[in-house]
Amino acid sequence: MTRGYSRSKADYLIRLRKIEGQVRGLQHMIEDDRWCPDIVQQVASVTAALQEVAAGLLDCHLQHCVLDAARSSDREGRARLDEVASTIRQVLRL
Amino acid sequence: MTRGYSRSKADYLIRLRKIEGQVRGLQHMIEDDRWCPDIVQQVASVTAALQEVAAGLLDCHLQHCVLDAARSSDREGRARLDEVASTIRQVLRL
Amino acid sequence: MTRGYSRSKADYLIRLRKIEGQVRGLQHMIEDDRWCPDIVQQVASVTAALQEVAAGLLDCHLQHCVLDAARSSDREGRARLDEVASTIRQVLRL
Amino acid sequence: MTRGYSRSKADYLIRLRKIEGQVRGLQHMIEDDRWCPDIVQQVASVTAALQEVAAGLLDCHLQHCVLDAARSSDREGRARLDEVASTIRQVLRL
Repeated sequence: MTRGYSRSKADYLIRLRKIEGQVRGLQHMIEDDRWCPDIVQQVASVTAALQEVAAGLLDCHLQHCVLDAARSSDREGRARLDEVASTIRQVLRL
Repeated sequence: MTRGYSRSKADYLIRLRKIEGQVRGLQHMIEDDRWCPDIVQQVASVTAALQEVAAGLLDCHLQHCVLDAARSSDREGRARLDEVASTIRQVLRL
Repeated sequence: MTRGYSRSKADYLIRLRKIEGQVRGLQHMIEDDRWCPDIVQQVASVTAALQEVAAGLLDCHLQHCVLDAARSSDREGRARLDEVASTIRQVLRL
Repeated sequence: MTRGYSRSKADYLIRLRKIEGQVRGLQHMIEDDRWCPDIVQQVASVTAALQEVAAGLLDCHLQHCVLDAARSSDREGRARLDEVASTIRQVLRL
């Protein structure tokens, strides 16, 4: 099935593989008894990379699935937009 | 002009007036030399209330302005959705 | 009573009064039916200003109250640091 | 060298390995063309798990390295607390 992110699938996979590598790097930092503030700083940078992925996926989703739904019917459009609004709340941890 | 939040305008004004009162309350806490962690906890609760307002406004905006734009033309819809995506990035501080 | 933020009390009051003014500004934006993404962007900037206040207060608290407690006794120091850790969790909404 | 998190090293490694698995899970969701809001919700949950790790590491760091530094000298204590304050700012993305 085609999704909003289909065209950038390869790009998201590359970013997530890089994030996976960073999480492995955090494990090495712990194993090597690295200085705690350095590890926390690295955690903050991984967190930001993940939120970039979330923002990008939401963007694709809006530009494709939501736009398609809005064109097909008001009810469909409204349902998809409701779902996006609740997803935004989850990302903001509200 | 009608906005997505027009029907809930009174509700948003009530919430923002409450938040304004809480910010004044923070000033009193500082003036009264209150215990620092108590003030920070109160700041965190005002911050969450503000992000609830942001999430609510985005929701109204999606359900009205963006849906209308998507119905009127693809180009309009896309432009509004691009704007929403960049607003979400600002809220997430990316 | 002297608090960690005592010397910068005036500075915090100025910042909080500015934030109070910005929250009133948000109310005017709603009253004037301003464009929703512009309001959300302004909410994001008030939120960041509040978190700056929280980070600053935590900083003062660590440099004064927590340092004093750590010097007076291990038990006191530990108790204050526990409290700081739980305050950090509240700010991060965990 | 002993760090604040030394005693809970095994626990942090378990948590980070679980997070690494979740990031791999996100890649499978992308490969399987899963529904975008479901992926974003999962990203939000990984982000929260990472921030829990950051908050926990800061906590250990305060209870050990910072407390030790504060006991050894005022100057050392102040330097470590300055560092913690700047780390908190990075976590809050300020």
